[in-house]
Amino acid sequence: MTRFRLTVEYDGRPFMGWQRQAHGPSVQQAIEEAVQAITHEEVTLHAAGRTDAGVHALAMTAHVDVERPITPFRLADGINAKLRPLPVAILSAEIAAEDFHARFSCIGRRYLYRISNRRAPLALDAGRAWRVPVPLDAEAMDEAAQLLVGRHDFTTFRSAHCQAESPVKTLDRLAVRRIGDMIEIAAAARSFLHHQVRSMVGCLELVGRGKWTKADLKAALDARDRAALGFNAPPDGLFFVAALYPAP
Amino acid sequence: MTRFRLTVEYDGRPFMGWQRQAHGPSVQQAIEEAVQAITHEEVTLHAAGRTDAGVHALAMTAHVDVERPITPFRLADGINAKLRPLPVAILSAEIAAEDFHARFSCIGRRYLYRISNRRAPLALDAGRAWRVPVPLDAEAMDEAAQLLVGRHDFTTFRSAHCQAESPVKTLDRLAVRRIGDMIEIAAAARSFLHHQVRSMVGCLELVGRGKWTKADLKAALDARDRAALGFNAPPDGLFFVAALYPAP
Repeated sequence: MTRFRLTVEYDGRPFMGWQRQAHGPSVQQAIEEAVQAITHEEVTLHAAGRTDAGVHALAMTAHVDVERPITPFRLADGINAKLRPLPVAILSAEIAAEDFHARFSCIGRRYLYRISNRRAPLALDAGRAWRVPVPLDAEAMDEAAQLLVGRHDFTTFRSAHCQAESPVKTLDRLAVRRIGDMIEIAAAARSFLHHQVRSMVGCLELVGRGKWTKADLKAALDARDRAALGFNAPPDGLFFVAALYPAP
Repeated sequence: MTRFRLTVEYDGRPFMGWQRQAHGPSVQQAIEEAVQAITHEEVTLHAAGRTDAGVHALAMTAHVDVERPITPFRLADGINAKLRPLPVAILSAEIAAEDFHARFSCIGRRYLYRISNRRAPLALDAGRAWRVPVPLDAEAMDEAAQLLVGRHDFTTFRSAHCQAESPVKTLDRLAVRRIGDMIEIAAAARSFLHHQVRSMVGCLELVGRGKWTKADLKAALDARDRAALGFNAPPDGLFFVAALYPAP
């Protein structure tokens, strides 16, 4: 048995999300079926993050165990050939330690959220950004974002379906910057609650348009109540950027 | 009669190109029909560049004449509403001088060509970059590109369907740079021959993979013969970036 670590890029639009679902296509299922077609083995893929429907990944880390001898290079090429024409690509495959676990060994996760702050519809970024037509103050958003950095009870920013044991998480970084019409929000933490990034972005958007002050954001955090949430940003703008692991 | 200057973004994938075609959808036709639906006037759109099938635009400039009184703001919003769900967006509309002509007043055109230099298929950049799996030497490509800068007879880099009167053009800039896996080629000139950018990129790719030397590229240019062309790069990676006009 060999454990392979895979780095995966995908466009989330055609999928119900990362995780296998009874009622629709998932990235996990697509890759598992590709591996099975090559190895003729029943396999289960584990990932650093289980992204929602419509959420993308620049470099998701996953692992899979394979009995049949195969090189990482041939495995990656084989999966990619089977995945065609789905917008999922194995960027790299490597042999991992037997105790490596894409989800449980992960010590850091990074997300990027893109807001296209313009009036015109998105022709080139359709499905890849959240379009907000009213002008947003990115500096005010960045300032408010710093209130969320650190160790907090993020119940306000947690989906009702969240399976995490505790709502207390440490947010390492939440940085907002404007590049022309695009506002990029970078988030980093050991782990996130379900919908946490989209919930935080939704509230920051309210700050950006002047509907919420910093104090409103602080009050929402302190309320520890989902009902205090301003808004859940749509999945389109969210990208899983990277999973971090201890050096071997 | 009011002349409107439009700035247009589009994803070229669903279109036969900018220009109206008898046998398939075009960006020009899509926008003309949107304007006609709003104004009930027969209109003709003129553009700075007539991009080929599959070529994209970040900001194409076009103009159109409208009899009915309408503000630029309402015209842009109206066209965008009619264009839905096509991947074409009017980024801005403004009233232009009566003698402004998107094509004939244009004094500079800028293109960007994106090569994704990696083995894995493109999940997020499918249709938006040319994937080249063998490693390319971007510095060698940039050095060779400088041979093409300046005033030359570009017959070698001209499509058989090119309608330009002369194959002599002045290329102002051709710059190649690598950003991670992506190689970006920026081209600027007053005007380009049909297929010129894709033809130049195709030859630079041969230089990048070591199949051609600088001398081979020079010989191809000097041959002034389409048969000396190395390769025509696919449309996927090509973006019309901007059209320049004299200050009013």
